[in-house]
This record gives sequence, C-alpha cells and structure tokens, in this order.
Amino acid sequence: MTAVELIERKRDGGTLTGNEIRWLITEYTAGTVADYQMSAMLMAIFIHGLNGEDLTVWTEAMLTSGEVLELSDIAGCKVDKHSTGGVGDKISIPLAPMVGACGVKIPMMSGRGLGHTGGTLDKLETIPGFRTGFSADQFAILLAEHGVVLGGQSEHLVPADRKLYALRDATGTVPAIPLIASSIMSKKLAEDLDGLVLDVKFGPGAFMEEIDRARRLAETMVEIGDLRGTRVVALLTDMSQPLGREVGNASEIRESIDTLRGEGPADITELTYVLGAEMLVMGEVASSVEEGRTLLEEAVATGRAMEKFAEIVTAQGGDAQVLENPELLPTAYNTDTLEAPESGWVARCDALSIGVGAMRLGAGRERKEDNIDPAVGVTVQAKVGDHVEKGDVLAKIHWNDAYARGIATPLITSAWEISESPVEAPQLIAERIGSQR
Amino acid sequence: MTAVELIERKRDGGTLTGNEIRWLITEYTAGTVADYQMSAMLMAIFIHGLNGEDLTVWTEAMLTSGEVLELSDIAGCKVDKHSTGGVGDKISIPLAPMVGACGVKIPMMSGRGLGHTGGTLDKLETIPGFRTGFSADQFAILLAEHGVVLGGQSEHLVPADRKLYALRDATGTVPAIPLIASSIMSKKLAEDLDGLVLDVKFGPGAFMEEIDRARRLAETMVEIGDLRGTRVVALLTDMSQPLGREVGNASEIRESIDTLRGEGPADITELTYVLGAEMLVMGEVASSVEEGRTLLEEAVATGRAMEKFAEIVTAQGGDAQVLENPELLPTAYNTDTLEAPESGWVARCDALSIGVGAMRLGAGRERKEDNIDPAVGVTVQAKVGDHVEKGDVLAKIHWNDAYARGIATPLITSAWEISESPVEAPQLIAERIGSQR
Repeated sequence: MTAVELIERKRDGGTLTGNEIRWLITEYTAGTVADYQMSAMLMAIFIHGLNGEDLTVWTEAMLTSGEVLELSDIAGCKVDKHSTGGVGDKISIPLAPMVGACGVKIPMMSGRGLGHTGGTLDKLETIPGFRTGFSADQFAILLAEHGVVLGGQSEHLVPADRKLYALRDATGTVPAIPLIASSIMSKKLAEDLDGLVLDVKFGPGAFMEEIDRARRLAETMVEIGDLRGTRVVALLTDMSQPLGREVGNASEIRESIDTLRGEGPADITELTYVLGAEMLVMGEVASSVEEGRTLLEEAVATGRAMEKFAEIVTAQGGDAQVLENPELLPTAYNTDTLEAPESGWVARCDALSIGVGAMRLGAGRERKEDNIDPAVGVTVQAKVGDHVEKGDVLAKIHWNDAYARGIATPLITSAWEISESPVEAPQLIAERIGSQR
Repeated sequence: MTAVELIERKRDGGTLTGNEIRWLITEYTAGTVADYQMSAMLMAIFIHGLNGEDLTVWTEAMLTSGEVLELSDIAGCKVDKHSTGGVGDKISIPLAPMVGACGVKIPMMSGRGLGHTGGTLDKLETIPGFRTGFSADQFAILLAEHGVVLGGQSEHLVPADRKLYALRDATGTVPAIPLIASSIMSKKLAEDLDGLVLDVKFGPGAFMEEIDRARRLAETMVEIGDLRGTRVVALLTDMSQPLGREVGNASEIRESIDTLRGEGPADITELTYVLGAEMLVMGEVASSVEEGRTLLEEAVATGRAMEKFAEIVTAQGGDAQVLENPELLPTAYNTDTLEAPESGWVARCDALSIGVGAMRLGAGRERKEDNIDPAVGVTVQAKVGDHVEKGDVLAKIHWNDAYARGIATPLITSAWEISESPVEAPQLIAERIGSQR
C-alpha cells in the first residue's frame, strides 16, 4: 500500500477500504505519510466527499490514533454534550452538574481553541484554583467519585486530529463537513461514551452560517454514531444573537451560577433543560424527555444541581466559595454603557459583531499563544424582539485596556438595529436530528 | 494575499488572477508557500482543471521562475520540437541537423529523465567526447555559430517545474493535462522560441495511452502557444509499436546516422520529414509544408544534413569520426535472436513490452540515480503488417548482463503476435492540431 495509490483512488472519486483508511491515519500520525501527501488527500476528500461507512472508519481510525478513555468499570451510562460553539454559549457549565445530579455520568473533555471568548476550560479556570488537566487514571477516579469531570483534552487524545487540524488550517480544507464531523466525533467518542448530544449552531455567530450546512453536519455526526452503535442526537439552534446575557469568561460563570439557581436567562435555561432531558433519556435515567425535564427542574429547585457544581469545583481544586459569592470572580476596572439611540423594537442584536468585539476586548484568542483577560466582556441587555425606549441600556462593555476598548466599541455598537414596528424573537431550537427518543 | 485564500478559491471552482498565479509560483519556488499548500492546490487543479488564460499565466510564471534564454540578438527564427516520448523515438537527432541545414535555428534543450531508454542526451553522449552542459552564454555562442545546439536543461531552467514535478509524483497529481502541458511548455518556451512542433504520442508505449487524452494535451499546449503568440503545431502519432528498428542508446545514434544519409527506416524518415517541414514553415524558410519537405529531402540527398550533424558533434566536443564509422560506437558483447514461432502476419509488436524489456536490459533508468548501458537494446526486425515465415528473425536482443537478459527476454518475446491472416500496419500520423500552416 502506498499513499500515492490511495490519493489517486480518492482523486478519481473512488473509495478506500477500512484497512486503507486505518493505514493512512496511522502512518500520517507517525509521520511516514508526509503532510504534502495528506493535504492532497484532504483536498480530494473536500471535493469528492467521504460518506457512511468510510467516514465512520476514518473517525474510528482518528480516535484510536492516541489515548482512549476506558470507563467500562464505572457503573452507569456515560453521556456527554458537544456544541459547535457560539457567542455566549456557556451551556456545558450549568448542564453538566444538573445532569450529573440526576445520576448520569459525564466524562466531559473540552478543548481550548480559538474563539470570540475562551472555551469552557478558560471560563472554569476563572474560578480560583480550578484545575482541568488530569491523567487518564485521575480522570477515571474523579468520574467514579463525583459522576462528572470537566477536564481538558490531554495531548495524547486523538493526536491525528491535532496534526490534521493544523494541516487543514494551512491548506484551505477546514470547512469540509466530513472532516469537521470526524474531528468532533473522534474527540468525543474517545471519551468512551454511551450517548452524545450535539448542539449544532447556525447563524451569523456560528461556524456554520447556513442552517442547511448545519443540518448536513448534524446528520453526518448522527450517522457516524449510528454506524458504530453510539446513541447521538443533534439539535440545530439559532446563533443569530448571543446566548444569554453575558459574553466573556468570569461573567459567563456568574450567569451559569444564576442558571443553576433557577435564575438564569430564559434562553440559557430552556436550552440547558432541552439538552439535559435528551441526556437523561440516553443515560437511561428518564424514559422520556418530558420526564427528563421534570427531573432537571427538581434538581434545580431542590438545590442539588448547585450542590453538585460545588462538589465538582471542590474536587477539581477550585474555591467553591465563589459559587456563594460570585462577586469574588474577576471583574473589569471599567464599564461603558451602550444606550438605545431611539425608541422601538430590537430588530438585530448581531452575535458576530458582539463576539468579535468581545475578542478585541481580550475575552478570546485570535492566536493560540494569546492570553485571555477573564474579566472583560459584554453584558447584552436588549435582545431581538425586546421593546426599548430611547436611552435604555442595550449593553454594558466591561474593559481593562483603552486601546482594545477603542477598537471593540464601534464593533459592538454596530450589532444593534432598532425598528419602528414590533419584531418577533427568533426561535431558539429549530430542529432535532436523531432516531432515538 | 495568502496561499490559503488562493487554495480556497480554486477548491470551490473559482479562478485566480494573473498576479495571484505569479505570486503563488514565485513564493512556492522560493519556499515561502509550503509543499503541503501547493499539493492541496495541485489536487484542486487536478479535479477542477486550469484553462485558457489562467493556464497560460501559470506556464509563463513557471518559465520565468528561473533562467530564460535571451536569443533575440541571433538572426533568424528559433524553432524547436518536443516529443512526449516513446519507444525507439530518436527523431530529434536526425531532425535537428536536417532543419538546421536548411537555415532555421534550433536551440534545443533536452531533459534526461526516466524512461525505457535514455533520453536524447544519453543517446548523444554515446558519441565519445560529446558534451551537452553549457552556460547560457556558451549556448548562445554555439547557436550563433552553428545554428543548432543539442544541449541539456541547466539546473537554473524552470526551477518551479523541478519542484512541482517531484511534488506531483508524491501526491498523485502527475496525470493532469494542464499540469503536464505547463510543465512541457514552460521548459520549451524558456528557449525563447518563435515556433514549436510537438509530437504527442498515443498508444500502449506512450505516456498517454488513449488518443482522446493525447488530443486534449495537444490542444491544451497549442492553446498556451496561441494565447502568448508563439506558433505551436502538434501531431498525434502512433506509439503502439516501436519507432524505427532500434531501441537502445548507441544503436539509436546509428539509426539516426542512417536516416541523415537517406537510408533510415520508413517510419523514422517520414516522421522526421513531416515534423521538419512544419519547422521550416514556422521558421519562415518554406512557404508550405510541401516546399519544406522538398528542402529537407535535398539537404539529405546533397549530404548537407549529414555535414551539419558532423559540425554540431565537433562543436560540442564529440568525435565526428563515429559518423563515418558508426561501428566505433559501443556495442553489446552478446546478441540473441528471437525467431518467429510460426508463419503469418505480425499482428502485434508491442512498444510497451519491448520498451520495458530494453529498460531491464539496462538501456533506460528506473530511478534517477541509475546508470545506463549505452550498448544494450533491441533491434526490431518485424513490425505490424509484415509477413514472416516460421524461423524468420523478429528481433535481436543485445545484452551484457546475464541476469538482466533473463528478466528482459520473456518480456520482449511477449511483444509479438502472429496472425494467420493479413494485418494492416497502423497509421503513423493520426492528426495535426494547430491553426497555422
């Protein structure tokens, strides 16, 4: 078998066997197949596609390219959730303790990556002392003892994806649906899951702008799960405006705490319950999503969800006092207020402009080596459909660096559009994809 | 401008501007654009194509990536011929002196490459003392003084092609017609030509097996010439059986000498005259191919073609005595005779089997670092359509190495098929492509 033979076959629209795909991924990870050969293969895949069984084998080959969790000794179903990422998306943080409090195991490993704000790890690390780096053994012990781990992806997890992603980034082959799907699924399936809920975003603030592409990505990931026998359900959700009110890092922890207390914004609360109910069904704790939702509401009402979060924070070395006193979390030195220039209904509250603005303030990374300022961000106070009077607060801009503020403010300001006539709020959850319910 | 932007555009079937193509080729040659980026671009070009103006700009960018001959100070039209290569194809060797004897300048630079036998350079170097490596200045002086140079491609000629070819070879992107066309044309057009005749082969012994692909390659190269204002004519010629009788290196020089004396095989003589007549028209020495052919026949009949060859050989340091006494050229120590197993008509005399057999004898290179044995080869004595009696000689196998002979003999033997009923000889020249006549 040579790399050239396989490239030629894919180039001409043919298919590769399972053994060929496994060989290619293994040899590429080992460095025997060169970057310039893999990039030609990726371009052929980009143009001709990679489907069904082939894509499942490709994903499986990626996930076995490195360390894989082995959690079968731990009782109970292991379920996780993955979001393709959006502005203000902190759902994982209230979701994991809520679902964990109901008895489903959540071995969550998150990436750091680039984005408008930090990732789940960056947000959690604004809690003093909170650790996310564990060995596979430590991870398994934490999961066995507490039922939930909010960890980071180790360097040994899916090394093929690390290499492939860097190569795709340099060769114009990032936005290929099979390559995105296999990248996401290989990392999640390496968590040894029984079930996975996917939150696939669409709209201007999402990686996939059009709902059609988001749907294709969701269907592709559900199919990978089906073909290997892992339950996967995907929701297509709106990302035209930020999720919740807070866009930042420490501020998103504060909003997560509110949500765990039952005092979160309506959209965050709703999406957390809907995703969580699917996880409880997959985790065989609820027999229907309706029952699942009731269980989650009870966990919040009784304080068990919040207690579980405190337990996780303590187990991972964090100071659980901040959960009682969220004002202990970092805050910015300065706050500007953005006011409505006229009365009317909010017609646009653009997630992308607010997201890029937050990144410019220092809340997110443009390059891997950038540091994040945990305190800066935007508080969104008027969302699409809301009625505002002239002079009402649309948003608050929390900043530390005057130069960054100067660049970010016009971007953030440009996000809003006020209409003279009433506007309907967009539907948060557009579709559900997946055969199991 | 970034490589990723250009790759993405081509990936999606878009076109690149002239400046973008020039930037890409320049930066790739300089090493700023990485191999893994160029291989993704090559795969996108392979699948989506590269046409018309774009391909002409691509070719031009390649040819200006290195040293280009500057021959405008030398009077007269400069014309050359290129063949895509075939078994027994020694046409350049009798052609250049014939056309040169009629007054057209021929600044021929040939490659060495891989193949069933050596290239034109390897064949010429079987003449003792014959040199092919010249600086651009030496090359121009030789051309000015003798009207013909049979030189090698310097390392400074089209460095982009050298890099691109190695990359294509490792990434399954060799057989893309635009990439083949630009590789050939960039090297030939770097000779500062007024006109170019192309001999595009098809059949089992050719790089392009099917005539349709050979035609598309020919049309593509003619279009590149048209768009930049260089006269280009292509002939599609048969490569199902070897050209002439000799397949080797020194033996092909002997057959070339025969042809210059008017005593060559019919197919070699015919193809040399047809290609040469086109060159004389392009070179503005003849006003029609009929007139061109008459001029070539006169050059042979009067001995001027042979004299010109002796002049070139002497100018390039070779021993012109071998032209008078071709038996001074290397010969193999052993010769086997291959006899017809039955009486009938030759139905097949397969160029590929004979070519691979000759290579196994040592006449050609499998790898760049291989040496060539100038003495070994095959003499083909019965070709398609010939009538043979049982026991007649089909071929002679000239060998030096017993192990190589053992591998080559069955291959060479398998080339012939004898039919009980008469067979028609294939037509040598199938089509002519090009607007000028």
